[in-house]
Amino acid sequence: MTQNEPSVESAEHPHPERGYIHRKDDYLKRLRRIEGQARGLQRMVEEEQYCIDILTQVSAMTKALQSVSLGLLEEHLGHCVVRAAQTGGPEADEKVKEATDAIARLVRS
Amino acid sequence: MTQNEPSVESAEHPHPERGYIHRKDDYLKRLRRIEGQARGLQRMVEEEQYCIDILTQVSAMTKALQSVSLGLLEEHLGHCVVRAAQTGGPEADEKVKEATDAIARLVRS
Amino acid sequence: MTQNEPSVESAEHPHPERGYIHRKDDYLKRLRRIEGQARGLQRMVEEEQYCIDILTQVSAMTKALQSVSLGLLEEHLGHCVVRAAQTGGPEADEKVKEATDAIARLVRS
Amino acid sequence: MTQNEPSVESAEHPHPERGYIHRKDDYLKRLRRIEGQARGLQRMVEEEQYCIDILTQVSAMTKALQSVSLGLLEEHLGHCVVRAAQTGGPEADEKVKEATDAIARLVRS
Repeated sequence: MTQNEPSVESAEHPHPERGYIHRKDDYLKRLRRIEGQARGLQRMVEEEQYCIDILTQVSAMTKALQSVSLGLLEEHLGHCVVRAAQTGGPEADEKVKEATDAIARLVRS
Repeated sequence: MTQNEPSVESAEHPHPERGYIHRKDDYLKRLRRIEGQARGLQRMVEEEQYCIDILTQVSAMTKALQSVSLGLLEEHLGHCVVRAAQTGGPEADEKVKEATDAIARLVRS
Repeated sequence: MTQNEPSVESAEHPHPERGYIHRKDDYLKRLRRIEGQARGLQRMVEEEQYCIDILTQVSAMTKALQSVSLGLLEEHLGHCVVRAAQTGGPEADEKVKEATDAIARLVRS
Repeated sequence: MTQNEPSVESAEHPHPERGYIHRKDDYLKRLRRIEGQARGLQRMVEEEQYCIDILTQVSAMTKALQSVSLGLLEEHLGHCVVRAAQTGGPEADEKVKEATDAIARLVRS
């Protein structure tokens, strides 16, 4: 983020420090697809489709969500955590603890 | 399923043998809530909220999906697999194999 | 299990009804390998090897354990649960509930 | 790590930079317990114990391994990744990528 990129600090990007900002459209697209999968599952239940076919779709949707998580996490480590480490002090420890807690929730969910 | 429950075999329930049928409305409600969570995540990304808060919501949504899977699976085992076991023959083995494959996909997703 | 296989009901096989009995040696071999992986991990920590390499080994060991679980579960469904279903009555429901609880523990661990 | 801690750089600690070094004994103790669980599982299979009881022990062992992973990962982020971030340059990006790949393996295993 240099002085030459003022637009990122504009109203359009209230938090230019978020790691995922530069791939925002990609995340929105993936989340819209996931929303569509949730609607597809409702249709399958509505039509009383076969349980195993519904389970296969739930697994696909879970994988898509997991992939969103891993992407967000990578960008979080590469931006927020790296920046906190460079600043140093207690904030670095705090960010590492916070990221580890989020990873634990991911691993256990 | 006895002769005294003809309505289940009506047009409303094309597949009365599906294990989840008697809880269909509950599943639809849960899936609508999951669809709402997917929309909530899009709003969070749109507003450029903090990565860790988004990850927390993704974990909550994954847990909700997992709980739908486990419910569907229990009903599948209790209805389709039990019925196939009672019929016996190759269909029983097939249903067990099919259920195990679905469980493996769940465990690995 | 026919009348021609009396040895299975001998002292050597106190529970001939366990689904995994006929693959007992295979499971013992896999569990011995997993025990070896646990010892290998201790050596890696002892020698202060690189954290990421240790994590890679932990993931491999977790996958090996998961594969043992899925195998045991398939045999449990194919033997104990199928048998209970054929017997019918409350035991069938109980076995399905018990298996689903075990699956939930697997999915969440 | 300052000049005042020479013992850490001794033969006993060939890699003083490993994040988990200061909890090495704790990790060794946990891994020995996990090795014991692997032996306990062999005994259970040997004695032909009930499948579900074996599955419960496998889940407990998987959870113990997962907890080792999350501990190692937290220390890796807090030491190796933070240090690389402070050094800056391509090594920081590399370490973040490497850690994310390890997290992905954990989440998917």
